[in-house]
Amino acid sequence: MRFAAIMAGGQGKRLWPLSTKKRPKQFLTLHGEQTLLQETVERVTLLIPPEKTYVVVGKEHVEVVLEQLPSLPPDNIIVEPMGRGTAPCVGLAALRLSRIDPEGVMIVLPADHVVKDKDRFLKLLEKAATLAAEGTHLVTLGITPDHPATGYGYIQASTPWPKSGAVVESEVLEVERFIEKPDKETAKRFLDEGGYFWNSGMFIWRVDTILREMKVQMPSLHAGLMTIEERVGAPDYEEALARIYRQQDIISIDYGVMEKSDCVLVLPTGEIGWSDVGGWTVLNEILEIDGEGNVIQAHHIGIDTANSIILSKHADVKDRLVATLGLSDLVIVDTDDILLVMDKGRAQEVKRLIEKYTKER
Amino acid sequence: MRFAAIMAGGQGKRLWPLSTKKRPKQFLTLHGEQTLLQETVERVTLLIPPEKTYVVVGKEHVEVVLEQLPSLPPDNIIVEPMGRGTAPCVGLAALRLSRIDPEGVMIVLPADHVVKDKDRFLKLLEKAATLAAEGTHLVTLGITPDHPATGYGYIQASTPWPKSGAVVESEVLEVERFIEKPDKETAKRFLDEGGYFWNSGMFIWRVDTILREMKVQMPSLHAGLMTIEERVGAPDYEEALARIYRQQDIISIDYGVMEKSDCVLVLPTGEIGWSDVGGWTVLNEILEIDGEGNVIQAHHIGIDTANSIILSKHADVKDRLVATLGLSDLVIVDTDDILLVMDKGRAQEVKRLIEKYTKER
Repeated sequence: MRFAAIMAGGQGKRLWPLSTKKRPKQFLTLHGEQTLLQETVERVTLLIPPEKTYVVVGKEHVEVVLEQLPSLPPDNIIVEPMGRGTAPCVGLAALRLSRIDPEGVMIVLPADHVVKDKDRFLKLLEKAATLAAEGTHLVTLGITPDHPATGYGYIQASTPWPKSGAVVESEVLEVERFIEKPDKETAKRFLDEGGYFWNSGMFIWRVDTILREMKVQMPSLHAGLMTIEERVGAPDYEEALARIYRQQDIISIDYGVMEKSDCVLVLPTGEIGWSDVGGWTVLNEILEIDGEGNVIQAHHIGIDTANSIILSKHADVKDRLVATLGLSDLVIVDTDDILLVMDKGRAQEVKRLIEKYTKER
Repeated sequence: MRFAAIMAGGQGKRLWPLSTKKRPKQFLTLHGEQTLLQETVERVTLLIPPEKTYVVVGKEHVEVVLEQLPSLPPDNIIVEPMGRGTAPCVGLAALRLSRIDPEGVMIVLPADHVVKDKDRFLKLLEKAATLAAEGTHLVTLGITPDHPATGYGYIQASTPWPKSGAVVESEVLEVERFIEKPDKETAKRFLDEGGYFWNSGMFIWRVDTILREMKVQMPSLHAGLMTIEERVGAPDYEEALARIYRQQDIISIDYGVMEKSDCVLVLPTGEIGWSDVGGWTVLNEILEIDGEGNVIQAHHIGIDTANSIILSKHADVKDRLVATLGLSDLVIVDTDDILLVMDKGRAQEVKRLIEKYTKER
């Protein structure tokens, strides 16, 4: 059996103030008609129907998931009592799925990514799922880099797997190591050398494989999961779940398992138009750019305005005008209650503003 | 008898979008508690009480004047059917005042200026009014320049008046010529040479003196005014007024009378903290500047934000936040229906945006 486990617990700091704690970016319509969450589910629906799709989400966002995914069985929403990174999130999903089919394959997908080439993406997932079904490996998609990005972690591949066979794109490779976001120079070297891929955060494995690996690499989390499992159906289940979660460190599945495990395979994606929508500047890649290099989603008039991102999204105000004169390389985000204006080159620092704002309140 | 004639017909283009056609800047609170119009009336009230104060305004702004100046007798509002520059505006006021006291002194004041040193200002007006009461000269206040501004017209003074007496500050001088807004180099030369003053647009004269000068310099306007005068009290007065106005060219009193007249005296003001609030950058002079060189009227958090003007004025939205990061020398004006972001150095070009906006609609 195959499942999709969609991780929708992101906090939405990087597209602030369009995305907020109340409505993180996975629940927003950034391009087209659908929200990123809706696109994520829709994208794999030919491979995994909604009945086999599970969404892991914080309790504060259950309502919005129900609203945005009417075809999802409400019981397929797995509720986290609080955010503790992707490791407990994946563990909780695996726990649920192991009750249905412990040898089933789960496809773990972040809810806030963009993938333009759906067909190729599905073929890759199909291949990865077949591979994972053997129960021997953790499989991840490695995005074939087209520029020396510093905003992503990298995966260094080693030899092809199985050992025989030539290294070609979309062949399966064994993983040598996971690498944190590099500086520009290192990233350039990775591209020159070849054999490096962006860490997509998309994973494919059998339920029992990941639980087995968790038991080895994260015994404390695994023990916690087992305690949770014992309380399923008990009146104090919620309480036990919250207690175990509270005890966990905030830790990603990458750091907790993938980097340490020695049975990880990477499936290079080739060109699939992937983005993690990890910040304002990524909008340049996923939205239409005008003749002056601007990405504009606003009623806008401009004179000498170039290479900027201008978004105005108001719930109630119709026809609000954004007028600009003599600007370049700015990000302007105008929402109902917050206006952000910043240097595009410093868009990654938006978190500093959120911190300052939170502290002030 | 002494009168104040306050010209409140400005269109509010230069502080757009805070000021708009519907609410030009004279009706806005830019600093402190009062609007610029209220300040203008208040400023001279020790010299000219409200009963002797007249406000010339377009018909679309009669309501706001009544609202903002409750102590002004409603009959003291002189309504222009349309804007035709300051020459017809002054003419219409003179016409009204000549019915009360043709030998009275009228002090003509724009409604949208800032003057910080009220005491000195009143002393100057007192002196100018005394001088004007002789009925021989048109008197204007010349602002003693403290920097080579290019945003103001200049007045070149010649010899002291009366001919005897030494040239000292606040002495009265004869006017050699009026000069249009100069370029930077010329403005610097003016300051180096001395004897040049900023044209304040504030005039003091006897009612009969200005009407006499109008008859000489602007015979067509004067004839029109006489026609209007004939219709006072007639049922077709409004119609006649509108017809005459429609026939006038848009012309300022400076260009129409002052530049051509040979009986103009200038009274240098010395340091009185005057500004015509002629554009966004002037806010640097009249509002408080923080340690980073910013003028901020907003709920603002900023990181590395310098030398910028940030205003957020919403009628209904409480606590709207403006967040900025990595900016300098910008003007950000955030109103209910328009957001403006522009290079401070190009603030004078804001009219181009209004034109583009108007054309689009």
